[in-house]
Amino acid sequence: MNDGEIFRLPIRVYYEDTDAQGVVYYANYFRFMERARTEWLGSLGVDMARLQDEERRIFVVAAVRATFHAPARLGDTVVVTASLLGLTRASFDIEQKIYRDGTDGELLVGGTVKAAYLDADTMRPKRVPSSIFGKR
Amino acid sequence: MNDGEIFRLPIRVYYEDTDAQGVVYYANYFRFMERARTEWLGSLGVDMARLQDEERRIFVVAAVRATFHAPARLGDTVVVTASLLGLTRASFDIEQKIYRDGTDGELLVGGTVKAAYLDADTMRPKRVPSSIFGKR
Amino acid sequence: MNDGEIFRLPIRVYYEDTDAQGVVYYANYFRFMERARTEWLGSLGVDMARLQDEERRIFVVAAVRATFHAPARLGDTVVVTASLLGLTRASFDIEQKIYRDGTDGELLVGGTVKAAYLDADTMRPKRVPSSIFGKR
Amino acid sequence: MNDGEIFRLPIRVYYEDTDAQGVVYYANYFRFMERARTEWLGSLGVDMARLQDEERRIFVVAAVRATFHAPARLGDTVVVTASLLGLTRASFDIEQKIYRDGTDGELLVGGTVKAAYLDADTMRPKRVPSSIFGKR
Repeated sequence: MNDGEIFRLPIRVYYEDTDAQGVVYYANYFRFMERARTEWLGSLGVDMARLQDEERRIFVVAAVRATFHAPARLGDTVVVTASLLGLTRASFDIEQKIYRDGTDGELLVGGTVKAAYLDADTMRPKRVPSSIFGKR
Repeated sequence: MNDGEIFRLPIRVYYEDTDAQGVVYYANYFRFMERARTEWLGSLGVDMARLQDEERRIFVVAAVRATFHAPARLGDTVVVTASLLGLTRASFDIEQKIYRDGTDGELLVGGTVKAAYLDADTMRPKRVPSSIFGKR
Repeated sequence: MNDGEIFRLPIRVYYEDTDAQGVVYYANYFRFMERARTEWLGSLGVDMARLQDEERRIFVVAAVRATFHAPARLGDTVVVTASLLGLTRASFDIEQKIYRDGTDGELLVGGTVKAAYLDADTMRPKRVPSSIFGKR
Repeated sequence: MNDGEIFRLPIRVYYEDTDAQGVVYYANYFRFMERARTEWLGSLGVDMARLQDEERRIFVVAAVRATFHAPARLGDTVVVTASLLGLTRASFDIEQKIYRDGTDGELLVGGTVKAAYLDADTMRPKRVPSSIFGKR
C-alpha cells in the first residue's frame, strides 16, 4: 500500500445508529470507524478473525481522538476513510474521517486511532508484521 | 412487488456485533433484520427518514419471534432476507431469515416481525399505504 | 428459588438506548432483558463469566418472543423482570416483562426467552445444573 | 457543585458490552462515560429529557480523547467518574476515568469530553446556564 492512499467505506445510517436527538449517537461513529479499519486491513490481506483464532494476535485500540463537526442522520450514507499516519514497532496510527455522501461532502467527524498489535493470550505487544503496510 | 419475492441484504459481521462468547450477540440479529427491512422498504419506494420528517409517519415493531439455530461469527458475511407474510389495515408481518454466506448457506436465525404503521405524533395506528405493497 | 418468585431489575434509559423515533430502539429491550437474566442468575449463584472461563459452559438464547406494547423514553426508569416458566434437561424458559417505573406501572414489553445450556467448546447441549433452580 | 468534586457511577459489564476479544468493545466505554455524565448532570439538577422536550436544549459531544490502558471484562463492575475540567460560554470540558472495581482499583480508561450546549432546533451554541455548575 502506498502511504498516501486513503481507504473509503460507505456506510448507511439506520435507526440503530441514531438516538433521541435524531442524529447518530456519538459512540457509534467509533463503530463506523472500526468497520472501515477492518475492511481496510482486509484489503491489505489481514483477516482479523483468522488472525485471532489461528495466530492468537489481535489489534486493540490504545487511544482515540475525535472531533465531531456535524451530525449524520437517519438514512444518510456516510463515507468513512482510513489511512496510515504512522507506524511504530508494535502499534500504528490511523487517520479516520467521516463525510456525508462522499469525500467531497461535508466533513462530519475527524479522528485518529492508535491501534496496538498484541498477543491475544498474554495481551503483550507484538511487532506489527511488515507485510501489512509494505516496505517502508 | 410480487408477494413471493424475497429481499436479500448481505451484512458483514464486525467486532461490534460479537460478544465474549465469540459469536454475534443475540440482540444484534434484530439490528441486522432491521437493516434488511429498511433496505427492502427502500426498494419499494419507502424512505423512512423522509416519512418521519415530512409525513410524520413511522413504522414500529409491535412483535417479534425468532429462533436462533446457529451463531454467526466475526468476519462472516450473512445474508438477511425480508418478505411479506401478511398485511392488515395498519400493520404487516414480515418473515426474516439470516443465513451464513448466502440463502443456500446454513440457516442461522429464523423470525417474524410485526410492524405497525403509526402517526409519529399521536402514536396511533394509520392505514399502511397501498402503494407500498402493490395491488392486493 | 421459589418458582413463583419474580426477579426485578431497575434500568435507566440513556441516549444510547434510544433512536431517532425518540424511544428505546426495539433491539435494545433484549439487552435490558439480558441484564435482568444475568442479575437473576447471579442471585441464584451463577457467575456467567466464571462459568464460561472455568467450566466452559455458557447460556445461549435459543428463541425469543416479545410483544411491544408501549415505548420507553429517554430518562425513564424501567423495571425488567425475570421468572422461570419451565425447565427441560438442557434449557429453560424465562418470562420477562418490562414496566415503566415499576411492576405497578405501565407494561411496555412482554416476552419469553428460551435459554440453552451449552458446552462452550463444542456448543453441544449440557444438562442444566439442578443446583440453579433448586429441587424440582 | 464544588469544582474539585468527582462524580462516580458504578456500572456492571454484561455480554452486550463485550466483543469476541473477550473484553469490553472500545466504543462501549463511551456509552459508559455518557451514563456517568447523565447521572452527574442529573445530580446537578439537569434532566436531559425534559431539557430537550421542554426547553429545546441539548448537550452534544463536540470532541473526545481517550486512552485505553487495560480492558474491562464480562462480570466486572467498573466505576466511571466525571468531573468538570473547564467551562466556556457554550461548552464545557469533562474529565472521565474508568476504574475496575472502584477509584482505588486499576485505571482502565482515561479521557476528556467536550460537551457543547445547543439549541435543539437550530443546532446553534447556547450559553451554558450558570445554575448548572454554580457560581464561578
